Amino acid sequence: MTISDLQSIPVNSALLQFGADEMFVTDAGRSIAQMAIAYQTYGTLNGEKSNAVLICHALTGDQYVASQHPVTGKPGWWELMVGPGRPIDTSRYFVICSNVIGGCIGSTGPASVNPATGLSYGIDFPVLTINDIVRAQALLVDHLGIDTLFCVAGGSMGGMQVLQWAARFPERVFAALPIATGARHSAQNIAFHEVGRQAIMADPDWRAGRYLEEKVRPEKGLAVARMAAHITYLSENALQSKFGRKLQDRTSRTFSFDADFQVESYLRHQGASFVERFDANSYLYMTRAMDYFDLAAEYGGQLARAFLNSRTRFCVVSFTSDWLFPTSESRAVVHALNAGGASVSFVEIETDRGHDAFLLDVPDFIATTRGFLGSAAQARGLGAVSGVKA
Amino acid sequence: MTISDLQSIPVNSALLQFGADEMFVTDAGRSIAQMAIAYQTYGTLNGEKSNAVLICHALTGDQYVASQHPVTGKPGWWELMVGPGRPIDTSRYFVICSNVIGGCIGSTGPASVNPATGLSYGIDFPVLTINDIVRAQALLVDHLGIDTLFCVAGGSMGGMQVLQWAARFPERVFAALPIATGARHSAQNIAFHEVGRQAIMADPDWRAGRYLEEKVRPEKGLAVARMAAHITYLSENALQSKFGRKLQDRTSRTFSFDADFQVESYLRHQGASFVERFDANSYLYMTRAMDYFDLAAEYGGQLARAFLNSRTRFCVVSFTSDWLFPTSESRAVVHALNAGGASVSFVEIETDRGHDAFLLDVPDFIATTRGFLGSAAQARGLGAVSGVKA
Repeated sequence: MTISDLQSIPVNSALLQFGADEMFVTDAGRSIAQMAIAYQTYGTLNGEKSNAVLICHALTGDQYVASQHPVTGKPGWWELMVGPGRPIDTSRYFVICSNVIGGCIGSTGPASVNPATGLSYGIDFPVLTINDIVRAQALLVDHLGIDTLFCVAGGSMGGMQVLQWAARFPERVFAALPIATGARHSAQNIAFHEVGRQAIMADPDWRAGRYLEEKVRPEKGLAVARMAAHITYLSENALQSKFGRKLQDRTSRTFSFDADFQVESYLRHQGASFVERFDANSYLYMTRAMDYFDLAAEYGGQLARAFLNSRTRFCVVSFTSDWLFPTSESRAVVHALNAGGASVSFVEIETDRGHDAFLLDVPDFIATTRGFLGSAAQARGLGAVSGVKA
Repeated sequence: MTISDLQSIPVNSALLQFGADEMFVTDAGRSIAQMAIAYQTYGTLNGEKSNAVLICHALTGDQYVASQHPVTGKPGWWELMVGPGRPIDTSRYFVICSNVIGGCIGSTGPASVNPATGLSYGIDFPVLTINDIVRAQALLVDHLGIDTLFCVAGGSMGGMQVLQWAARFPERVFAALPIATGARHSAQNIAFHEVGRQAIMADPDWRAGRYLEEKVRPEKGLAVARMAAHITYLSENALQSKFGRKLQDRTSRTFSFDADFQVESYLRHQGASFVERFDANSYLYMTRAMDYFDLAAEYGGQLARAFLNSRTRFCVVSFTSDWLFPTSESRAVVHALNAGGASVSFVEIETDRGHDAFLLDVPDFIATTRGFLGSAAQARGLGAVSGVKA
């Protein structure tokens, strides 16, 4: 990918494009003109428009939930979960996944051209909230003619969006599946995000956010940010059993600052490959939106009020080895849902794969999703598709 | 502090200076000529030379364990523990603390001038091991005319040195107090160190390690490294209870990348103040020495063999909320000591203060140290000093 590609990433997604007179007003009171939302759909919307599943992606995710990424060529990031015969069965459900606003894969974000100036926004782009992201998704759902989503699902930052959807548009969400997430970002998580932002902003190629105009990119800073974050996505046990103290392509220590250990080599690779597909300013905006997320604060400090009298069916999922969003965060959501009188299942999945477990082949988690959606589909009156038993 | 100060930091310590014909040969087989070891002592060595306590400092520590730091003006880093009437009682014991080699506060390290070139070493300085650091300390102990240390004590990287001392020089260590440490560095800990090193090396002012010659310093990279590391020194609970989501000097979010949250402001301060007192290359060398530490590997893969028939009295201390060196790492040391037939007490201190607890006012920990040293002093035949009951 070249620098110029970054502003016009080869997105092969559908695009919802707003006009020059249609302003999107953010929670901070700023306006975005000519907003675009890039999205993918899979499967067919039924006549009743009752089988739509909205999938919300995580911090560095995208709309290619079940199809090849146009830059990396990799399969969709959740093909284990989404596809024909999968738990989120595209032969049964109409699946929507959009790139969040503030992102960099087709939706309007800091790398986009500001129609008012003809230059890319950079950090003149408005700082967004999870609520802004969700309100933009709601406009897409409107555009697709869907009143009520059968399900909204997502992990991590995607799970924050699920909770925000359920709180803000309870009548539009039949079922909600927030995974490995919380109703607020913790001090430790804010701290890790701040390290990543400081790494990016310390890179002289960041150019006070205006690097695209100057045809450079803060790749080193972004790589360091990714490396730091990546450690938090794995569990200590997973790192120890995968890498331990094993050396990389050598039989003894080199007494140098080369990547002697496999875990160093792995992290460097994570950093280097990330900068190929992600915009540094988008990373700032996404981390900030997560930091700002505090659902209780929007409801007078009482999380239960966010879900009062909700008729949405919830399934809250956490993973035992996730230390970024530990089970205690999910449990706080479950308590609030219970206090609000909502219908909720809570499943803590035993796994040593850490936060990233929601993206991995964890059979108990996949079975949980299948079971929850199957039962919700029955309640929703969604019949089995031909050839597939519910 | 100016840039030129960094090479000649205003060290007011005693100095053990080796001559031009006295080479220190590192584990990697490299030689250091004219090595210097800067050290502080407190209290008086008794006639039998049996009351010496060697304190080993941690990654970014120094020899000013109980006296004011010459750059920051702050009190000694372990004054809670070391001083008259303190558990490591300077009216009773002769306390030695030296800056580790590879450090930057007076002992020879990468910022020192290489006598062969007349320029600072930079990353031509040999990569060191914990064993190198300990062997250099042993030369200092020789110089002070001490055969057997009454006690070797230290936390974190200091604790690694304690274990190395006990393994390599068992007859010279009467009592050993390794705190919040382990016998090897874990994959996760190597990963965090690698992030820090990459942050430093990504800074264009690092100049491939030769920044001192070019009169610049990679301050931004070093600050990011410190910020990332600092998170690992605290527990999630400590961060949550100290900062939570509290805002810094403002009543609402600014929708910017300013330090809105107190935890951000705190971390930025940690980064900014650290670069005032620490050399970036030393940070690379110290983290590398810790990464390389794997005591079992030096003894055929069996940690117990490191302590076989040791007559040293050990007290191993861990903290419940320390996730950098969790109790499991201390327990592995204790098992090896037991298997080796050594005398060992093991104390896990209940605290929410994380890894840094060993530097803080944690009464159970201070009492444990007092008790262990008092009983060891009795066994060593060290009488009470006048006015202080043992």
